[in-house]
Amino acid sequence: MSNNIPYKTYLSEDEIPSKWYNVRADMKNKPAPLISPATGKPLTLEDLNPIFCEELNKMELDNDTKWFDIPEEVLSFYKMYRPSPLTRAYFLEKALGTPAHIYYKFEGNNTSGSHKLNSAIAQAYCAKKQGLKGVTTETGAGQWGTALSMATAFLGLDCKVYMVKCSYEQKPFRREVMRTYGASVTPSPSDTTEVGRKILAEHPGTTGSLGCAISEAVEAAVTNDGYRYVLGSVLNQVLIHQTIIGLETQAALKKLGVKADMIIGCAGGGSNLGGLATPFIGEMLRGEADYKIIAVEPASCPSFTRGKFAYDYCDTGRICPLAKMYTLGSQFIPSANHAGGLRFHGMSPILSQLYHDGLFEARAVEQTSVFEAATLFARTEGILPAPESSHAIRATIDEALKCKETGEAKNIVMGLTGTGYFDLVAYEKFNSKTMSDQLPTDEELNEYLSRLPKVD
Amino acid sequence: MSNNIPYKTYLSEDEIPSKWYNVRADMKNKPAPLISPATGKPLTLEDLNPIFCEELNKMELDNDTKWFDIPEEVLSFYKMYRPSPLTRAYFLEKALGTPAHIYYKFEGNNTSGSHKLNSAIAQAYCAKKQGLKGVTTETGAGQWGTALSMATAFLGLDCKVYMVKCSYEQKPFRREVMRTYGASVTPSPSDTTEVGRKILAEHPGTTGSLGCAISEAVEAAVTNDGYRYVLGSVLNQVLIHQTIIGLETQAALKKLGVKADMIIGCAGGGSNLGGLATPFIGEMLRGEADYKIIAVEPASCPSFTRGKFAYDYCDTGRICPLAKMYTLGSQFIPSANHAGGLRFHGMSPILSQLYHDGLFEARAVEQTSVFEAATLFARTEGILPAPESSHAIRATIDEALKCKETGEAKNIVMGLTGTGYFDLVAYEKFNSKTMSDQLPTDEELNEYLSRLPKVD
Repeated sequence: MSNNIPYKTYLSEDEIPSKWYNVRADMKNKPAPLISPATGKPLTLEDLNPIFCEELNKMELDNDTKWFDIPEEVLSFYKMYRPSPLTRAYFLEKALGTPAHIYYKFEGNNTSGSHKLNSAIAQAYCAKKQGLKGVTTETGAGQWGTALSMATAFLGLDCKVYMVKCSYEQKPFRREVMRTYGASVTPSPSDTTEVGRKILAEHPGTTGSLGCAISEAVEAAVTNDGYRYVLGSVLNQVLIHQTIIGLETQAALKKLGVKADMIIGCAGGGSNLGGLATPFIGEMLRGEADYKIIAVEPASCPSFTRGKFAYDYCDTGRICPLAKMYTLGSQFIPSANHAGGLRFHGMSPILSQLYHDGLFEARAVEQTSVFEAATLFARTEGILPAPESSHAIRATIDEALKCKETGEAKNIVMGLTGTGYFDLVAYEKFNSKTMSDQLPTDEELNEYLSRLPKVD
Repeated sequence: MSNNIPYKTYLSEDEIPSKWYNVRADMKNKPAPLISPATGKPLTLEDLNPIFCEELNKMELDNDTKWFDIPEEVLSFYKMYRPSPLTRAYFLEKALGTPAHIYYKFEGNNTSGSHKLNSAIAQAYCAKKQGLKGVTTETGAGQWGTALSMATAFLGLDCKVYMVKCSYEQKPFRREVMRTYGASVTPSPSDTTEVGRKILAEHPGTTGSLGCAISEAVEAAVTNDGYRYVLGSVLNQVLIHQTIIGLETQAALKKLGVKADMIIGCAGGGSNLGGLATPFIGEMLRGEADYKIIAVEPASCPSFTRGKFAYDYCDTGRICPLAKMYTLGSQFIPSANHAGGLRFHGMSPILSQLYHDGLFEARAVEQTSVFEAATLFARTEGILPAPESSHAIRATIDEALKCKETGEAKNIVMGLTGTGYFDLVAYEKFNSKTMSDQLPTDEELNEYLSRLPKVD
């Protein structure tokens, strides 16, 4: 150990932040408003309330309030599994022979296995407070569905989960965890919704997509009395809830007397990267500090690096609002070959605007190189990482190796969103050397992007 | 929250104990010595060294040294995943409506998912120091094998794991984790050893047992150059390594100003209960304090409550030393119906002697009631517990409900050994209501116990 930095830094319970941060309050260029697919006009609370929980909708549309109090009940729940540790990766550094100091904020120390629980409990709490019977949602890798079922079980709410069919089949154990927490889980597309039946008719044999599961969950929410739809990523409210990650990281770094040089996070819909990075980006927007921030996405679903900044539907079924975001087109579905999560065609509107304004950079990495990084990390740092998180590990290792060349002792802070316990089918492919990379062609992407909706 | 006790208490890094505790130094009645199956005489270092690592053998036979320094390298590894939190189960207490204060020491916050890593790294370190190529071992539920493969990957050693066949088949993902950490995994009984071939010939179609996998792993160690056998439970050395659990618990309780009334742990081979409880039992032996300590075992493998305190073989193949312990007979194999781990026919000789001397009590619980307790715990405290750990949860809930009747605010400390991520086949059975209890009959047990070896 060097510099008296411990392996793991835990905040004490009363050092856990009691407010969430809303970066929009510090943004000069606010994210473009969500637009109603019906009217073509910016969405109002009245438009949103039939679909989402009321309290959350206020947060969704609020570009001005910088800090939101975390409700006492949510804070109590947080204290069951938070603070999450900020760990110095001494053994990874040693294996790489890098002078860089690598820190990771590990969000996998809870049964859902990821950071998703931070927003799940906040959203379930609002549903409960509104007197609802239950909530509907979609889940891809299963992390969000598990997190939500933990939160709803805790609060005594019903939970209907639409799970992307390929995950449903590849991850029977994820299903069983959700069932243990009392949720019902339906493979998507299914014949339980109109949109599901339509997609099945058009694409028989499809293994599903997150966009399609979203359409089904939304339909289930609006057609069932006392239900609302909740979503684990992309939305502004989710990024706000997830800032608990970045705020805790800032507090821990401050405690250690360490100034981060780089912040690296994986990006699918943006929940983790937004939660980790926006408190730091806020410092940049206020001119208080400067950081190099890197969003890492899969080369097979490259929204930032090959997508277009434009209005698009958030779901395949085109019943959700339109958002201005980096998108590959709402009909884009990553190759079935892609095992590494982060499958959403779009990106958080907040992050999209920040990226457009040059507040951070993005890079795409291929899945075989991601699993190589994951294996090295597992063997040196002990933790078996989620494929999603491993995108950030890949970029972190690459940056640390650059430091080795230049001799710079940079402080790299990485978001380790979760564990890979439920991703062993993917690890099996990698271990058996049957995993390959299959990227979308330019023709394919252009085709999807040419079909973006026209919004004035 | 009451009494200003936080949800979770973490020790700081420099509060992690730097020594392991050996309860034998405080025992008036020492455990009976291990006996060589070949000579019928107490085992010496010379007998043990061909099978086990030298440094560990010294520890195994040492009845006098009270404290062992934890090597610096092991302590560094510990700091990657320790200290483990001591959590106040506020939400479980509330759900039960009990005045009892329930604390649990959670050992599942590492990729192996259990406390087994505490001894795995210590044993792998000794193998490395001795200049060995690798180690062999057996694993049942897979926790020990995973832990050992993490430790050997970290130190660059080879690792050959014999996995009880029913687990190998029911837990393909466990296998894949071990493989990711570079271990080779063979289902047991296998045709790769003489003893395996013999068992397969006698019991074709057997789903295996821990005792049988031990026999194979020992044979693989003594027939391969530069290999030794390591074991994750039962042995004295393992209990010593695992005292990190109890010592951390004592330090955390002291920090909180809380005096435990009861200590509850599950018992299979004794690694967790011994690690958690012996530091407290030491206080009792030295006349410094008094505790009610409860060992909880499965009714389908009831070594303490229905076994005999006698010399017996530690393995089905009868090639391992004999130990004086509570045993069901080395040929005993729990019903295939039993899903909850803790399948070993014997029990740690140290714990056996302490139990015989009345230092703690034992109770057996049926698996359906164990999974009921697990589900309540998961839904209130968030953590999906391992079936093994859930035996302790069952007894803890029962004790807390007794407190509800008597109105006593007892402090109950429970060992939560691990997570149930890899036990979802068992949860699926429970959730689908296809799980049942199938206990050994008296006739069956008497038959096995009548065949115990005769030792003078």
